[in-house]
Amino acid sequence: MKEFLFGVTVMPRREVLDTQGRAVEETLQREGEPVVSCRVGRFIELKVKAENDASALTMANKISESLLANTLIETFEVRRG
Amino acid sequence: MKEFLFGVTVMPRREVLDTQGRAVEETLQREGEPVVSCRVGRFIELKVKAENDASALTMANKISESLLANTLIETFEVRRG
Repeated sequence: MKEFLFGVTVMPRREVLDTQGRAVEETLQREGEPVVSCRVGRFIELKVKAENDASALTMANKISESLLANTLIETFEVRRG
Repeated sequence: MKEFLFGVTVMPRREVLDTQGRAVEETLQREGEPVVSCRVGRFIELKVKAENDASALTMANKISESLLANTLIETFEVRRG
């Protein structure tokens, strides 16, 4: 078994109100920063054990979908490395 | 003025206890997932207005350093797009 590292980005869906993002956006604009928009999500660095790269990626996707993201209101993206 | 999109990843420093990451890691391991380690941070999608690409990047870095990350306990990385 080898170890594989993935980066998982979890973001609120476009149609869901992103309260954190709105708060940061409004604060930055009030501070005078030239910010057009801001969305806030999570970043998870995940290291898994697997036989090979393909099964590691399948594992990372499974974990992200079932446990790291709430797919009803969030989308996720798994990247190698 | 044009609009430029950046992705900012904010992670807890290695030497700082990442309580969220540890909690997720232990939960995943208890569920039987072959997880070696897990670190949890934030991902911020930031759109700024600027004259050109270079000044937009400078702006995104400034905003990240002063407002999005607590550099005492967190590191950040700004990427285009």
